[in-house]
Amino acid sequence: MRNLLVTGFEPFGGSRINPTEALMASIREESFPGAVIHTLLLPVVFGDCAERLTQEIDRLQPDAVLCCGLAAGRTAVTPERIAVNAMDVPAGAAYGDNAGNRPQDEPIRAGGPDGLLATLPIRRIEQALRAAGIPAAISDTAGLFICNNTMYAALDRIRQSGSHALAGFIHFPASTELALDKPGLPSLPQSMLHDALRVAISQTLAELDERR
Amino acid sequence: MRNLLVTGFEPFGGSRINPTEALMASIREESFPGAVIHTLLLPVVFGDCAERLTQEIDRLQPDAVLCCGLAAGRTAVTPERIAVNAMDVPAGAAYGDNAGNRPQDEPIRAGGPDGLLATLPIRRIEQALRAAGIPAAISDTAGLFICNNTMYAALDRIRQSGSHALAGFIHFPASTELALDKPGLPSLPQSMLHDALRVAISQTLAELDERR
Amino acid sequence: MRNLLVTGFEPFGGSRINPTEALMASIREESFPGAVIHTLLLPVVFGDCAERLTQEIDRLQPDAVLCCGLAAGRTAVTPERIAVNAMDVPAGAAYGDNAGNRPQDEPIRAGGPDGLLATLPIRRIEQALRAAGIPAAISDTAGLFICNNTMYAALDRIRQSGSHALAGFIHFPASTELALDKPGLPSLPQSMLHDALRVAISQTLAELDERR
Amino acid sequence: MRNLLVTGFEPFGGSRINPTEALMASIREESFPGAVIHTLLLPVVFGDCAERLTQEIDRLQPDAVLCCGLAAGRTAVTPERIAVNAMDVPAGAAYGDNAGNRPQDEPIRAGGPDGLLATLPIRRIEQALRAAGIPAAISDTAGLFICNNTMYAALDRIRQSGSHALAGFIHFPASTELALDKPGLPSLPQSMLHDALRVAISQTLAELDERR
Repeated sequence: MRNLLVTGFEPFGGSRINPTEALMASIREESFPGAVIHTLLLPVVFGDCAERLTQEIDRLQPDAVLCCGLAAGRTAVTPERIAVNAMDVPAGAAYGDNAGNRPQDEPIRAGGPDGLLATLPIRRIEQALRAAGIPAAISDTAGLFICNNTMYAALDRIRQSGSHALAGFIHFPASTELALDKPGLPSLPQSMLHDALRVAISQTLAELDERR
Repeated sequence: MRNLLVTGFEPFGGSRINPTEALMASIREESFPGAVIHTLLLPVVFGDCAERLTQEIDRLQPDAVLCCGLAAGRTAVTPERIAVNAMDVPAGAAYGDNAGNRPQDEPIRAGGPDGLLATLPIRRIEQALRAAGIPAAISDTAGLFICNNTMYAALDRIRQSGSHALAGFIHFPASTELALDKPGLPSLPQSMLHDALRVAISQTLAELDERR
Repeated sequence: MRNLLVTGFEPFGGSRINPTEALMASIREESFPGAVIHTLLLPVVFGDCAERLTQEIDRLQPDAVLCCGLAAGRTAVTPERIAVNAMDVPAGAAYGDNAGNRPQDEPIRAGGPDGLLATLPIRRIEQALRAAGIPAAISDTAGLFICNNTMYAALDRIRQSGSHALAGFIHFPASTELALDKPGLPSLPQSMLHDALRVAISQTLAELDERR
Repeated sequence: MRNLLVTGFEPFGGSRINPTEALMASIREESFPGAVIHTLLLPVVFGDCAERLTQEIDRLQPDAVLCCGLAAGRTAVTPERIAVNAMDVPAGAAYGDNAGNRPQDEPIRAGGPDGLLATLPIRRIEQALRAAGIPAAISDTAGLFICNNTMYAALDRIRQSGSHALAGFIHFPASTELALDKPGLPSLPQSMLHDALRVAISQTLAELDERR
């Protein structure tokens, strides 16, 4: 039996909703043969997000960690290629994290690797998403906000523990619900975001099977 | 019994598909009590689009004309506010119309009004779309390509004929099918575009009923 | 001797500066043979902007009216093609006018023409700007905020008065000074915006000479 | 005497010009007390760009390497934070490199670090640019095209050689000359791009002095 840890985030930046929070609820209703899906909602706070996630990784020893976040403004579902050892909120940014932190150019782990490439099968996921009719592209930056912090922490902990677990991060565009008040915001329906997560999980499980 | 004329366009600009072509097929499957929906596919050619449309308006004497077009790059369903008496393809544009025309600063009808406001209930349609969970906004420019040519021609003909028919134009974002090869393109699923057209027709019919 | 009326706006939307305010000061330092340039700073308030401008048109009886405004987010200097008989601030807009007004779908002049095309030589201006090395394009919408209100009022008053004065509106991108705090905002240096205004005035004067 | 190696690129993607090519010519006309500036024009070809650059690094043993590239579409001068060990041209991209290569998900150096943070004083450069009135921001992705290949190669070679040279990459927006045919493209005048490079070099030299 495979253990998969799938994470989402609470709302942030003044939004009432975060589509990845609803994804955690809806994906639990799905069944994936041979696998147990564990979901976890993470706080949008630098450091805390990583600590909460790595505790769960240590406890569950999952075969794969698939973190999900919102990237308002993107038009497609975007598996991230790399996490960077830096936390930064640009000077002009509209908001900091949910605790008000606005770090500048700080490392996530002093002495840690500068960057860590995703070990999830991101190309496979991207191609399967498109085959399923879902706009998708690999992204080359997860930003330097909470999403990158979370992705870096997962990859770094797994690497340090000697585990072979796959890990990575998928950014989702705004849901149409979010876009109703901001008609200039690209969006996809929540049901399509759910389908995208299902595809990503299935491809991750298939990859694990093939690597066995 | 109300007569509604609903129009879409053939593909253009090198695209294989135009989501408004599929909309014409799918909307014919719907029924609207007390109304007959006539659909018409228009050519993406300056002048021809208008001639074909006004012939059909003269023949059908519809109670309302609702033209549909693709605005790739938009994020929401956008009823247009105004048609302008000009045809123009910017010098650096990637393509002209499907006959290769690239007019510059030419009037649609010499001596015609500079602009013509939509007579469709665009605010009502926009609000009903949002209430239905569909991103929507009123647009203040339909561009100066075929869509504007078509909208101007409908409003101008109806005005000149002394008819009280409502008329206007709705721009649709790319469908997700179109966006699969261009992951930077905002899109909504074709099924949501269909729902949007259904809402727009229903609101137009309701407006006609209230004005009776 | 030609009389030209050139207008700019006070800051709005929370900005400290409006590059068109500085343009009014700097253009007064330039001399244009055979012409007197009158500058006027307009309030960013619906209605008031138009009243202030039409009073000055009535008083000066200028040969041409060239209104200037800021369109933050644009990348080029954009002469506007048409003014629309509508005032509208979208529901989700970050700010109303400087008096807090947020009209919805209101006409500028009830019974006025739906649209009024610029009578300034906008294509000539656009081409001269590019020849001078300044990014330029004709814009097909001035929005429905104060800039459109101003442009409509100028064209409408001149048309009603039977004058042959040329009139129109030029939107300028943000100045680099404005963009320093918002590095995602396209901008051009204030000195280039000044050069653009000088070119636009010269082309307007040349057009007046040729029409004589 | 400090040795600085400053690089630009030949045109690519169908453009006639690359503003960083002209920057190499214009910066040679400037003098920086206590420093010799060596300029190098690199080919826009995967692998070749890196080989040509690392040969010059080995030969010159510079105190700092400052690579310059064009990022058409950006609005500000953007020092890059990190180089990624990957080469990728997205499936739908309009062009490959100047030799027609379109790698997918390939490492720059197999077994090399996943990412390498810039060692140039990027925050200091960004702040000095803004203080000089030039829009600037730190960028968190240099893409995965030639620019990233070049930046990674410089940082990797310097790290492997045990040198303490500073290295990094600065992306420049389109010059206004480039934007004349594409009025939707954000741009800054070539003279401002030149000033930006001068500021970046001065700050790099000041950093070297302080670290002495």
